[in-house]
Amino acid sequence: MSNEHKNSLGQVSLVAKVNPEKESSYRKLLDAAIKASEMSYCPYSDFPVGAALLTAEGKVFTGCNVENASFGGTICAERTAIIKAVSEGYKSFKAIAIHCKKLSGKWPCGMCRQFICEFGLNIDVVILNTDGALEWRSLEELLPGHFGPESLQT
Amino acid sequence: MSNEHKNSLGQVSLVAKVNPEKESSYRKLLDAAIKASEMSYCPYSDFPVGAALLTAEGKVFTGCNVENASFGGTICAERTAIIKAVSEGYKSFKAIAIHCKKLSGKWPCGMCRQFICEFGLNIDVVILNTDGALEWRSLEELLPGHFGPESLQT
Amino acid sequence: MSNEHKNSLGQVSLVAKVNPEKESSYRKLLDAAIKASEMSYCPYSDFPVGAALLTAEGKVFTGCNVENASFGGTICAERTAIIKAVSEGYKSFKAIAIHCKKLSGKWPCGMCRQFICEFGLNIDVVILNTDGALEWRSLEELLPGHFGPESLQT
Amino acid sequence: MSNEHKNSLGQVSLVAKVNPEKESSYRKLLDAAIKASEMSYCPYSDFPVGAALLTAEGKVFTGCNVENASFGGTICAERTAIIKAVSEGYKSFKAIAIHCKKLSGKWPCGMCRQFICEFGLNIDVVILNTDGALEWRSLEELLPGHFGPESLQT
Repeated sequence: MSNEHKNSLGQVSLVAKVNPEKESSYRKLLDAAIKASEMSYCPYSDFPVGAALLTAEGKVFTGCNVENASFGGTICAERTAIIKAVSEGYKSFKAIAIHCKKLSGKWPCGMCRQFICEFGLNIDVVILNTDGALEWRSLEELLPGHFGPESLQT
Repeated sequence: MSNEHKNSLGQVSLVAKVNPEKESSYRKLLDAAIKASEMSYCPYSDFPVGAALLTAEGKVFTGCNVENASFGGTICAERTAIIKAVSEGYKSFKAIAIHCKKLSGKWPCGMCRQFICEFGLNIDVVILNTDGALEWRSLEELLPGHFGPESLQT
Repeated sequence: MSNEHKNSLGQVSLVAKVNPEKESSYRKLLDAAIKASEMSYCPYSDFPVGAALLTAEGKVFTGCNVENASFGGTICAERTAIIKAVSEGYKSFKAIAIHCKKLSGKWPCGMCRQFICEFGLNIDVVILNTDGALEWRSLEELLPGHFGPESLQT
Repeated sequence: MSNEHKNSLGQVSLVAKVNPEKESSYRKLLDAAIKASEMSYCPYSDFPVGAALLTAEGKVFTGCNVENASFGGTICAERTAIIKAVSEGYKSFKAIAIHCKKLSGKWPCGMCRQFICEFGLNIDVVILNTDGALEWRSLEELLPGHFGPESLQT
C-alpha cells in the first residue's frame, strides 16, 4: 500500500510507503541511530550524527561520524556502520537509519549514498522528518542513475 | 518545452528536456570532456574519464580522473574540473559534461554529485546515453533531498 | 633498549626497538590483522588488507579494506579498525597492526597515517617486513611534522 | 651543501638544505601559494590555504582548499594544484609550496602527502616556518616508508 504525499525531497515527487511492519522495525533502528550519535567524534563541526544498519539476517550495526583535522579525512556515520558490518562478514542490508542530533529531516550526503549503493539499491534509508515522523526512501530513489559495481563492467 | 521519454535513470521517472539552444552548447561541452579524458591518470582502473564545466560567465574548465595507489585518494574528473574553476575564482556554474571513454550512459558517482551540490542544484549534468544521444539532468534530479551548505545551519 | 639496524623505511634512518614484551603482544595483534583480512571487500584491487587496533584498555578492534566502484570512496583497513573503536567509545590507542595478504613490508598509506594521528602520535604501527620479522614504528616517525588537531588552533 | 639545525619536524632529526638557488626559486613559489590562498573556499573551517606546484618544465600551477558541507568531500590546496597540473598534461614535479593564512609552520596533511607521492618522492615541500623563514623537505622525508604505485606490484 502506498500513497503520494508531501515529502522532504523537494521538487522530485516521490511516493512514500505506508507499511506498519516496516514502521515498527525502522522505529527501533532509528532509536539505535540516536544512541549511536552519542559516540560521535566531531570537534570541528559540533554536529553529532549516528547511524544504525539492519542486515538481511536481522543484525544491527551502529556508527557515528568521525572527523579529522584535515576535513577531507572525515568519515560519516553511515559509512562507519557499513564498514563495521562488512568487516564482520555482513554484506546484505535491508535498511539504514540516520540521526542528526541538531537537525531532523536530513538525508545522507552523496558520498554515503555512493558507499551504500556498492551493496545494493533496494536498501531503505530512514530518517525523522521535520514533523518528527518517520520517513524512508530506497537508495534507488536517493541516487537515481547510480554509478555502481556493474558500471565498471565493459 | 519538455516531454517524457525513455531515460537512463532506471525506475525513477524523470522528465527530459528538449532545448535546441542547450543541445548545441552542451554538445560542445561534451566535446571538451572527451578531449579532457585523454589526460586521465588511471593506471589502476584503466578507465579514463573527462569532464568539462561551463561557468555562468561562459568559461569552460576541464578535468580528468587522477587515481592513487591508495584507491581512496582518487579524485574524479568532475571534481577536478570544479576545483580548477574555484581555484581560478569561478563559483557559479551552468553545466558539467562527463565522458567515460569505455562506457557511455554513466551518470556521476555520489561523491561528485555531493561536490557539485556545494555550488548549486540548478546545474545540468550532461552525458552521452547508450544510444549515443545527448542527455542531461539537473543536479537536483540526481541528488534528491541533497545534503548541502544550508543543511549545516541550525 | 634499542639499536640501529637495517629497516624498510628507505633512506631515512630510524631506530628500531627491541622489546620482548611488545614483541609478544604485537605478534598476537598481527595475527588478528591476518584473520581480519579475510573479510576484505576488494573486488577492484584484489588486494586484501586487514588491521587490528589495540586500545589503551587492552581491547582489540579489527578492520579490513572496503572498496567502492568510485575508487575515491574506498576505506582502508586501518581506518575501518579505528572508526569501529571510536564508534564503540574507545579513543585511546596503543598500537595498530596491518597485514596485506599479497605483500609484506608495507606501511600504511598517508591517508591512514592522517586518520590515526587524530588520536595520537605515540601509537605503534606494526607490520611484517619482507624478511617475515615483526617491525614497528611510532606514528610520529611515520608522519613527521604531522598536521593534527592542535594544528587548527590559532 | 647542508647542515643540521633546529627544525619544525619534532623529534625526527632531519637535515635542512642550504641552497641559494632553490631558496630564490622557492620564495617565488611561496608567493604564488600566498596569492592562491585568496581563492580558498572554506566556509566551514575559515582556514584558507594556498599551494603552488613547480613542474619539471618550470611551469607553475596553483591551488586552494575547497571544502564541502559533508566534510569528507573537502579537497586540500595541495591536491588541487596537482590535479590541475595532471589534467593539463604535467606529471613531473620539482616542488610544491604551501601557505596557510592563519598559521605558519604547517606541513601537509597525510592525505596530500599520499597524493603527491603518486608522482614521486624527490619533490620538495616548501613552507614558511614559525620564524618566517623558508623551509623545505623532500616528500621522502615527510612520508618515510611510503605506500606508492610500486607497492601494488606483486
